[in-house]
Parts: sequence; structure tokens; C-alpha cells
Amino acid sequence: MEQPRRIVVVGGVAGGATAASKARRCCPQAEIEVYDQDEFISYAGCGLPYFIGGYSPNWRRLLARLPEQFEAKQNIRVFLRHRVNSIDPANKNIRVADLEGVSESSIDYDRLIIATGASPFVPPLSGRELEGVFVLRSLKHALEMKSFIDMRAPQRAVIVGAGAIGLEMCEALRRLGMEVHLVELADHVLPPLDADLTGEVGEHLEAGGVHLHLGARVEGLEGRGGAVARVATSQGELDTEMVLLSIGIRPVSELAQRAGIELGDRGAIRVDAAMRTSLPDILACGDCATTRHLVSGRESWIPLGSTARKQGRAAADTVSGGEGSFPGVLGTFILKAFELTLGKTGLSPSEASDAGFDADALTLEDSVLPGYYRGGGRMTARVTVDKVSGRILGAQVVGDYGSQADKRLDVFAVCTGAGLTASDLSSLDLAYAPPYSHPLDIPIVAGNLAEARILGKECTCTMEGLED
Amino acid sequence: MEQPRRIVVVGGVAGGATAASKARRCCPQAEIEVYDQDEFISYAGCGLPYFIGGYSPNWRRLLARLPEQFEAKQNIRVFLRHRVNSIDPANKNIRVADLEGVSESSIDYDRLIIATGASPFVPPLSGRELEGVFVLRSLKHALEMKSFIDMRAPQRAVIVGAGAIGLEMCEALRRLGMEVHLVELADHVLPPLDADLTGEVGEHLEAGGVHLHLGARVEGLEGRGGAVARVATSQGELDTEMVLLSIGIRPVSELAQRAGIELGDRGAIRVDAAMRTSLPDILACGDCATTRHLVSGRESWIPLGSTARKQGRAAADTVSGGEGSFPGVLGTFILKAFELTLGKTGLSPSEASDAGFDADALTLEDSVLPGYYRGGGRMTARVTVDKVSGRILGAQVVGDYGSQADKRLDVFAVCTGAGLTASDLSSLDLAYAPPYSHPLDIPIVAGNLAEARILGKECTCTMEGLED
Repeated sequence: MEQPRRIVVVGGVAGGATAASKARRCCPQAEIEVYDQDEFISYAGCGLPYFIGGYSPNWRRLLARLPEQFEAKQNIRVFLRHRVNSIDPANKNIRVADLEGVSESSIDYDRLIIATGASPFVPPLSGRELEGVFVLRSLKHALEMKSFIDMRAPQRAVIVGAGAIGLEMCEALRRLGMEVHLVELADHVLPPLDADLTGEVGEHLEAGGVHLHLGARVEGLEGRGGAVARVATSQGELDTEMVLLSIGIRPVSELAQRAGIELGDRGAIRVDAAMRTSLPDILACGDCATTRHLVSGRESWIPLGSTARKQGRAAADTVSGGEGSFPGVLGTFILKAFELTLGKTGLSPSEASDAGFDADALTLEDSVLPGYYRGGGRMTARVTVDKVSGRILGAQVVGDYGSQADKRLDVFAVCTGAGLTASDLSSLDLAYAPPYSHPLDIPIVAGNLAEARILGKECTCTMEGLED
Repeated sequence: MEQPRRIVVVGGVAGGATAASKARRCCPQAEIEVYDQDEFISYAGCGLPYFIGGYSPNWRRLLARLPEQFEAKQNIRVFLRHRVNSIDPANKNIRVADLEGVSESSIDYDRLIIATGASPFVPPLSGRELEGVFVLRSLKHALEMKSFIDMRAPQRAVIVGAGAIGLEMCEALRRLGMEVHLVELADHVLPPLDADLTGEVGEHLEAGGVHLHLGARVEGLEGRGGAVARVATSQGELDTEMVLLSIGIRPVSELAQRAGIELGDRGAIRVDAAMRTSLPDILACGDCATTRHLVSGRESWIPLGSTARKQGRAAADTVSGGEGSFPGVLGTFILKAFELTLGKTGLSPSEASDAGFDADALTLEDSVLPGYYRGGGRMTARVTVDKVSGRILGAQVVGDYGSQADKRLDVFAVCTGAGLTASDLSSLDLAYAPPYSHPLDIPIVAGNLAEARILGKECTCTMEGLED
């Protein structure tokens, strides 16, 4: 495949910025252009709650690279506030509207990378348009919310949706001193985790001053003088001065769909491991694109910032004439909620059953350091195991922020991705010294216990290597 | 293989205690006896510096299980202060001396598990017998040292040997307020790590109040009134009230050798993956036994408490008539020195060359969290890569204690053990959120950089997924 002369990237936050940057490295001669309808590109979207919460009051620190740096350092032309209205695959060009002007122009490409991301899902609620009602997805959203908080000093906020953004924003808004109500339709927070693992999370949130409303449906928003004043829920009304709708996100794939590009899981743009779409010379990456789940083998839409960047690199490899390859994901995520860490990789027991596995799970709860060494805290790990092969299919963790539950989740993620079995876990050579772990760290004991309780081997190993 | 009637275990600290405990689970009917010449079994040997340093003033917390608990809970008979003098493999019995009495008796076994551990190496130094000169290997050693410190309140200590015990004891004795001198023959601390990685460690130790004497040979100990008063080194004399010799350890394998059992690497008892020695019905596990290095493939003696416990479990599986299996180790170790974390897994670049690999290394130094999120600290990772296959052969880390360098080392350990390549590292699905890591965590970026700098792929990825 010859080197492209012109590479055009639509969207420049994570996947797009990475793709453009890597493409420059791979294709030193190509013209590379990035179009984004927003005012900002290449920023840390996952950092927005921490900016709002005042951890990092200077929002510019969220910017990984400025447009002028892309231009000066990498000779990548960046067009902000430019919306791509259509793609003409036959003639290999796009129609672009300058949102600051009135012009629409036609732009040629040799290769097109679509990185349009995802957008917040907003249900058709009455009062959606009231002042003080926010979504939080882009840096622009965050600046709007921060400005509102600074100017109006709201005392009460209602957060709708107890997913990652909702939980992170509980901590952020509590840190700013607000009374925070969290409304969730499901009967537990963080629905991707097994319900029984999240019980202590609810208690922890309440201890942090969050008023939890589980199993509650939002029925409408009511205003006073154009500003939101009340949230009507199936469990009663909540007075408030501010609302965050963090219900979920959807892939932004209409542009691709109108061009005749095939969509996949949940309406995301279908791509192969090289990030190619169904049309020649058009690739996609990041939150608008599908990926493959490495355990279920299924096409999946699991939008995450880390995945977006890896897909961006693969897309750049492919446009430059190579064969980029991104094998897929385990859906690994991690989340801090006050002083708790919550995370997951691979499949939960019920997801494993849905995917056709004969699976069971092992749950282990313990301190992470020996009793004679202070600190560390406690964590719970639940490991999903294939009863037939013994293979690790996934893990969930809930633990104190200081417990390093996140990095133990990483160990489970590597094991899951590499196809290791419970027996392999039992003999992992993990780093042991008293300031870091028990002699047999949690993944090792989980392997032993899974062998005993799920695979029928006779043993119930403790952290000291003894039998219970 | 029929179930044994009598299982006898020689040594009960880590490997032996685990083997006996697991054997009870596997062989409910067998008589199980543990003989140990010491006064204590089943304790956390790696916790001794933390007991001495006062982190856990109650030494009983180091005891994982008491002899009476082994008896009452598991029907395992424990004989403390009993030394096994000889093994008669032909008649399947051992001669045991009761050190509290005068008797020597003959004890039959169906299966014998040798778990005699390792003992400190003490060079033939003049003054070795002076009061105030210590080694630190057993709980008894620790109690003796602690008692000396409590009674004599020494103000100055000289530690000879800057390995793991030496460095941990620097922290412990400084915590007790002593002036500490660390004397090391090599030109850098912690010789298993590459010298250039340990530069900042030396500075950190000195900032912690440790007087470093590198490249210095101890020539003798001098006393006054029977107590140590001075250490003569090749770089001059050091006044002191206390000396710790932490030069190294040796496998305790004479008993096995006299019985005609084959020895292996460094004089340790040679075992197979099922923990069998060269003689029938005699097994060995723990610090007295060899193991296989999973990267070099070589028989190796790498005594560590975590390995001992895993080998103990495998030995118990085998004695009970199954086929225990312990595949081997990566030599993973971790160590806290004041507020630094130091560790290693697999092979360093020079070890890899020695083992016949065409290897190179990639070194990466960075903060572990995004700039806009406080905390986390910095770490350095050096990853050894096979230039031919791209396979990860090992990693070394040096970082702030709060940097989770230890758990990132665990990720490298799992990758090394599973035979993953630099390209596999690049697409690891590790847990990302700002309170835990960069979008692309250190192992992922290390994979990208290794592909670029060692394997010739064109890229130099940053933590944000951009090109440098």
C-alpha cells in the first residue's frame, strides 16, 4: 500500500489526536489535517471531574498538546470549530462547515480517520433546557459547569446516574461543599459490578455525605425563573440548584452511517483489528468505534480513553501503509469513589454465562498487608473462572483507595488477557515483602481457592500459605 | 501411588509449615510430624526487620500459626528443639536429637519432606564471636538483637552487606535513632539491580541518615571487654556498638547431602517440578531447594518466602500421591528502603546475555499519575527485551514508595512469565483513571518504546498516547 499524500482526521480528543500524531511519525511527507467542531482537542477527558472538584484548578493542565504545538512540532494542521457535515467516499472528500463563519468547503483525503467519539445520552425529559442542567463529556461542558458553580455557588446538586462519571462527580461536588443527591434507576450503584459487591460502596457514599436514591426514576425537571429548581423522581421530589445528567453515552456515528459505513454493536462504527471500516481508505478509532472483547470474542462497544489511544495508534499504522493491529479489550475499568477503589476486567459470572461459558466465581476479602505492618487497607476480589478449562475470565475488585486494588486488578487483567488458568495464578511469581503484600498475594490465593472451590482440588489456602 | 501412613517434615518455618498444613488437607488419615531445631516455626521471616524497627513491637504477630494450633486444629505433631541428625533412606527413618534432653531416637517415615531452609553466610572474620555482632535470619536472631538493643541502647551500628536485609535494617535501625553505617563490597547497593539504577538509592539512603561505604571490604571486628567496638574496613575504621552481618545466605543441605541426595545450583537440594529429590520418597521445598528459572530455563537457587510456600504446597500434593507441580520462578523481589521501592523480575540485560539471549533494555522514567492529579510520585522501569522475538525477559523498578512500582513490577512479572512480547505490552488493557495512572500506563508505554527503540518500529509514545 502506497504512502498517503493527505490524511484527514475527524475529531481530535483522544483517538483522533493520537492517530494524527502517530501518522505524522509514520508518514513524514503526508499532509495531515484534524477537524473538530469543538474548541478544544487533545485533552484528558477523564480528568474533567478532578478539574471541577478543584484537584487541579487550572484546566489548561488537562490539555495534553495544544493545536499550535501540533502545528509547530508536528506539522499537523488543526481546524477547531469545523464540523464535518458529510463524507463522499466515491470521490474521497468531505464537506466541512466553519462554525465561526458561513462557509462550507470540500476537502480531499487519501485516507480518512473518523474519531468522532461519543456524546452524552439525554432522555427526553421535561425541563432539560433549564439553566443549571448539565451533562459532562467535553472540556467545554466542564468549563460551563465550573463557571456556573463559580458564579452561582449552588448549595445542592442532583446527579442522575451512578456510573463512573456520576460517582466521580459525587466526590467532586462534595469536595466543593455541596449537598449531593445521587439518583439511580438500578437498585445498586455502578451497575457493571455485581450488585452484592457494591453494598459497601453505597454505605461509603452515604458516609461521604451523598444522599442515595436507588431504584428511583427521574420523571422531570422543574424550573423557577428559567433555572432548575426541582427534580421529580418516582420516589418524590428533590429541591436542587443544579442537575448533572450522567446516564450514559452513545457513539457519534451518524456521519459515518450517512456515508454508507457499516455500524456494529450499539450503533458504533464497525472496525476490524486494523481499524478499517467497511469502506476503503476510511478508518475509525476511539469512542465512536467498536472493538473485540478478548474473552467473549464478540464485537463490543466499550468506549474508554485508554482504548481510544491504542486504537488511534493502530489506525495510524494502517493509514501509513502498514497493517495496524489492535487485538481488542477486556473492558478493564477503574474508578475512585471517595476513598474506595472499584474496578473490573473481563467478564462477570453472569456475563460469562451469557457468553456461553460454564462459569463460576470465587470471592476473596482480606487485608492486603500482613497484620504486623500498618496500612494498606482491605479489598475484595471476585474472580470469574471457566469451570471446564479453569481459565480466568475476569475479575472485579472493591477496596480501600490505599489497597492497590487497582494494580491487583491489572494483574488479573494481564492474566485474563493471556488466557491463564487458576492453576497458573497459583504459581505467579509476584513481588513479596511485608510493606507490599502477604507472602501469597491476593491473585495467588484467588488461584488456589478457585482450584479448590470451583475446580474441585482439595485446599483452602491462606495468605500465609497455610490451610484454613 | 498409595496414600502415605507417616509424613515427616524437617523444618517448619515457611516451606515446611505450608507442606505439613497442606499435607493434612490432602491426607486426612496420615500421621504428620514436624521437627525443627529452633524454638519457633511458622513465622514471617520477612517481617523480622519490621519487628526490630518497632513497626510491630509484638513479635507474636509474626507467628502465622502456633505449634499448639497445628496440633489442635490440624492434628500435626510439632517437635521444637529437635535436630534431625541423619537420614537413612534405605530403611526410611531419621535419627532425631532432642536438644533439651540427651536422647536421640529413630523416627520412621513413609514420605520425608526436607525444608531445612537457609542460614546466614558468615565469613571467617576475626571478632565474629564478640557480643553485639549479629546475623538476622531466624526469629531467634531477631529476639536476640531486639533484646540487645533494648538492654544496651546502642547509639551506632554497622551493617555489612547492602542486600535486601541490609537495606531494610538500615531503615529499621535509623527508625530507632541509631547512627547507621552501611558497608558494601560492591560499588553500588542492592547488587542484583543494574548499578546505574541504584544511584538515586544511595543518595536516598544518605538523605535518610545512612553513612554509605561502597567498595569497602570488612577486614575484622575489634572488641573491648568482650563487646564489639570497632569494624576495620579497607577504607578505614568505624567505631560501633553493634554489627549486623547481612552478607548473604547459603542453603542448609548438609543433612540431605550426607544421605546421598543430589545437590544442584549453589549447593541447594536438587528437586524436580514435583519437589522430588534424587531419592525415592524424599522431597524438599523452600530455601534449601533449587527451582527452575522460567526465563533462562536453568536450575537456580533463588530462596524467597513466597516461593517456599508455593513449593511447600507442591510437595504436599506429591507426597499425598498426586503429582504436585511448581513450574518455577522469575526471581521476583521487592524491597522498601525508606521511602523508595526497589525490585526486579526475570533477567537483567546482562543476565539475559549470559543466558544466551540477544537482549537489549528500555528504560523509562516518569511520574505515575497525570500532572493535574496530586500524588503518586515517580518511578523508573527498565525492561529487558529479546531482540529476536520481542519477548519480555524481565524488568527492574526503582520508585517512590507511593508510586505502586511494586504492583507495576507484578504486571511485568505476569507478562514475563506468560511469555508476552513488547507488542503484547502495547495493547494491555490496564485500568486507567486519573487517580491511578496515565491513559497509557508505564508497562504499555514501555511496550511501545521497546518496539520503537529495540525492535525498530518508528514511534516514541508518551503517556498520553502522543508521539514525542
